[in-house]
Amino acid sequence: METKTHTDILNQIQMEVSVRLDDAWGYDGDIARIARISTGSQRKGARADIGLLAHLIRDDHGSPLEMGMVRFEIHAPLFTVAQLLRHRMASYSQVSGRYVEMDLTFYKPLDWKGQGEGNRQVSGEVLPDEKQVGANNLYMQSIMQAARSYTALLDTGVSREQARIVLPQALMVKIFCQMNLRSLMNLLTLRMAHDAQEEFQDLAWGMFALTRQRFPVVMDLMMGRNKFAAESRDAYVAFMKQYADELAVEAEAEQFQSDHLANAGKKVNQ
Amino acid sequence: METKTHTDILNQIQMEVSVRLDDAWGYDGDIARIARISTGSQRKGARADIGLLAHLIRDDHGSPLEMGMVRFEIHAPLFTVAQLLRHRMASYSQVSGRYVEMDLTFYKPLDWKGQGEGNRQVSGEVLPDEKQVGANNLYMQSIMQAARSYTALLDTGVSREQARIVLPQALMVKIFCQMNLRSLMNLLTLRMAHDAQEEFQDLAWGMFALTRQRFPVVMDLMMGRNKFAAESRDAYVAFMKQYADELAVEAEAEQFQSDHLANAGKKVNQ
Amino acid sequence: METKTHTDILNQIQMEVSVRLDDAWGYDGDIARIARISTGSQRKGARADIGLLAHLIRDDHGSPLEMGMVRFEIHAPLFTVAQLLRHRMASYSQVSGRYVEMDLTFYKPLDWKGQGEGNRQVSGEVLPDEKQVGANNLYMQSIMQAARSYTALLDTGVSREQARIVLPQALMVKIFCQMNLRSLMNLLTLRMAHDAQEEFQDLAWGMFALTRQRFPVVMDLMMGRNKFAAESRDAYVAFMKQYADELAVEAEAEQFQSDHLANAGKKVNQ
Amino acid sequence: METKTHTDILNQIQMEVSVRLDDAWGYDGDIARIARISTGSQRKGARADIGLLAHLIRDDHGSPLEMGMVRFEIHAPLFTVAQLLRHRMASYSQVSGRYVEMDLTFYKPLDWKGQGEGNRQVSGEVLPDEKQVGANNLYMQSIMQAARSYTALLDTGVSREQARIVLPQALMVKIFCQMNLRSLMNLLTLRMAHDAQEEFQDLAWGMFALTRQRFPVVMDLMMGRNKFAAESRDAYVAFMKQYADELAVEAEAEQFQSDHLANAGKKVNQ
Repeated sequence: METKTHTDILNQIQMEVSVRLDDAWGYDGDIARIARISTGSQRKGARADIGLLAHLIRDDHGSPLEMGMVRFEIHAPLFTVAQLLRHRMASYSQVSGRYVEMDLTFYKPLDWKGQGEGNRQVSGEVLPDEKQVGANNLYMQSIMQAARSYTALLDTGVSREQARIVLPQALMVKIFCQMNLRSLMNLLTLRMAHDAQEEFQDLAWGMFALTRQRFPVVMDLMMGRNKFAAESRDAYVAFMKQYADELAVEAEAEQFQSDHLANAGKKVNQ
Repeated sequence: METKTHTDILNQIQMEVSVRLDDAWGYDGDIARIARISTGSQRKGARADIGLLAHLIRDDHGSPLEMGMVRFEIHAPLFTVAQLLRHRMASYSQVSGRYVEMDLTFYKPLDWKGQGEGNRQVSGEVLPDEKQVGANNLYMQSIMQAARSYTALLDTGVSREQARIVLPQALMVKIFCQMNLRSLMNLLTLRMAHDAQEEFQDLAWGMFALTRQRFPVVMDLMMGRNKFAAESRDAYVAFMKQYADELAVEAEAEQFQSDHLANAGKKVNQ
Repeated sequence: METKTHTDILNQIQMEVSVRLDDAWGYDGDIARIARISTGSQRKGARADIGLLAHLIRDDHGSPLEMGMVRFEIHAPLFTVAQLLRHRMASYSQVSGRYVEMDLTFYKPLDWKGQGEGNRQVSGEVLPDEKQVGANNLYMQSIMQAARSYTALLDTGVSREQARIVLPQALMVKIFCQMNLRSLMNLLTLRMAHDAQEEFQDLAWGMFALTRQRFPVVMDLMMGRNKFAAESRDAYVAFMKQYADELAVEAEAEQFQSDHLANAGKKVNQ
Repeated sequence: METKTHTDILNQIQMEVSVRLDDAWGYDGDIARIARISTGSQRKGARADIGLLAHLIRDDHGSPLEMGMVRFEIHAPLFTVAQLLRHRMASYSQVSGRYVEMDLTFYKPLDWKGQGEGNRQVSGEVLPDEKQVGANNLYMQSIMQAARSYTALLDTGVSREQARIVLPQALMVKIFCQMNLRSLMNLLTLRMAHDAQEEFQDLAWGMFALTRQRFPVVMDLMMGRNKFAAESRDAYVAFMKQYADELAVEAEAEQFQSDHLANAGKKVNQ
């Protein structure tokens, strides 16, 4: 394999993490359906399903939420993947730098920021333009040099698993990440927060948006709970009631033909 | 903070992972004692305890093994820690490069090896001397350049969480890792094997040796099972019988005064 | 509610556990597809997929097996459900005797057996006919009396959560049980074995048969491993090789149009 | 074995669950010590430790709480144990009715209660005296009859694993239950609540009291969080600040000689 040039590497800089929904299992209605086994009750329509989901999320009855599953294919830098792997209630399958020669794509932040005040773990304000240039140069030189060293070590005959240890945490890697909605809600609550690192916040919002397409009710209820929990329990109980009412009215108005809730309901009544 | 010189960084090269037993909970005898609740039987001495432990390990009755716990403080490169974190049945607490300026200590392999034949994920033979020199130079330059870039980015005013992304996977970090013996046995079986990366093999053997001081019977039985499992079930059943007999004879001869088995037995009979 | 008569209860005796596949997620081919991310390789057809699955199962690389999921709806006596709940890597949703009046259906063994010799936890030979009659009478009286007491306590005004405590472990209950294939393989290996209680063996074989319809390759490979593991590692490695060869030949002969492996392969190549 | 008489069984009625702390691992200070690895900071005394624990619990940084462990030996009726086993982040070892003849001790509620209004799963008011007598008679007859049937089935020669299925959910059994403080906090929050069944509430309060002797700061902070979370986040943040201040003042006044926090701090500074 030939040595990468400066230009090759410049072309392989990526400014953002990306996430794709590889697959999902179940719908909002399945969670309601499975939760109803505990009371042995029959399905009573969309409004009741939403009410039941609101009750589960409000009171932390998390088990039925485990019945909905999502699997993401994520492309992110190693430092973000290291944070992701701390979420243990999930299944992972990741590219191995021992097996394969790494694809030399690197993450570069859009802006360089100063150290945050107050919370010692976060970044603060965007640095002024003249510092951006300096930081960019330092960064690009460092990344290119690491990439060249990796390639040169391989050229010398060093094994892949040894050569890769010069590669920086900015290296982009691919990973499958599968989890249930209970575990996902826990991850999102922690990682959509302002003290999470920006790249993981981006990833978390991406996971949220993709999951919301499949499980709109569960995701909306979670967001409402998180938003209003800081105020008071009364506030989020009120939110949930209002949400359920509005969605139910909407559902009735549109007859909700394609409704996932209704579909899941049909399955069990056949 | 002043910029690190070449010499500063050369002094902070480490050739091996290290592991310390921070604390442990329980003894071999506690596992036997707790397992006996299922049969409601009384303690019948060291020989019977060992026989019971052999039975649990032989037949994969793993629950009682969860009652023994170990906590390690590990100093290892990021690429080894990333492998460690894939073991999800454990608790971790790790230094955060977002909070603190990283200690610029790096791991360097003792020898550079070629790509393995057959198994595509492992290293093969040690490279000839002339290649060692070349690889060492490439490696040291790459590491020092990454360290300088990190320091320079911090000097420019970049936040710690952003600056650290230039640091290579050879960076040494500290992590606490706590797990029960069931989870540990699973980790050791996978990571003491020849296809694990050498640094993790070293770590795994260190964990084994430290755990064996505290739980000698469980660890010896695990090793016997793993060794003879490749032959046949009969072979490891025979090993376990012989082990129990020998240890019991020894125990009786020495009256086993300091025996953890006996101590744990006393606790419950008081 | 009216008191149940002798006849009512006689009609609600069930002689077996039942299990239904409520839903499943993924196919054999998805597991192979997701495992391939670690080597970054392309799909090379059914034979290679089977070889990869055999490799994963043979060498205990369990993570990719977590990507296949099954959910069962189970109708079983409380004593079997209690054993099921000991499998913690799973999600459950169960009828609650606190919320609802229990459906008074009871399990009755087909035959009464004596205490086993050797293994102290299992049943032994079927008792002679004259003892069957006696045991049946004792059993039916006991069950009916418990059912009558439950109903009478409810009639007295006692709450459901208190009244239910007179109901015996033979009570049939409904439970959803969801787990991934890795966890299922662990459950099946323990519970299809001869020292598991007969009712759980029946349940485990039912779970196996239902899962095999969806994941034929993974389930066959697991069975082969379990069967030959008692002989030697060489024996099950040989089995796996032969299995992969035969299945591949078969697959080619039939062009395997409806093949799950191929389907999953298509998904990712689109 | 001889048949139990009416009186034998009357003597084996128990009115409450019991719980004993079999063993614990770590102290409040260990959790603070291990959490500090992430910031690489030195111990700054009891006040700072308490502040750190308050921060972890307030912001749901649960990982360091996993470093404290407790193991309980519990004596409770089967219906309570079934609820306990739903908590999966724990290790269990339970008496097996397949191995041993069950000890015929049964749980009897102190009072019989009516069905609750509003929340359909709970008990309501204590029933009037005349109904207590009726319910007691129904209950005692049912329990004694089940016990006699069990003994008679064993006398007929039926195996233990089959005979036990006539025994009611009121049967008292022994179980070891081990979990970390994170998992325990989750259990306590759900099971000390008013909608948990009374017997599990009793058990949860027992677990809390025993754990509080060993981990006073963590347990107090958890209680404060749960109490004030229903009001607002501001309320429990204020509680935590006040708690830390008061405890710190107290600690300084008494020089805190026996302080677990200080002890754990010493260990790491040696």
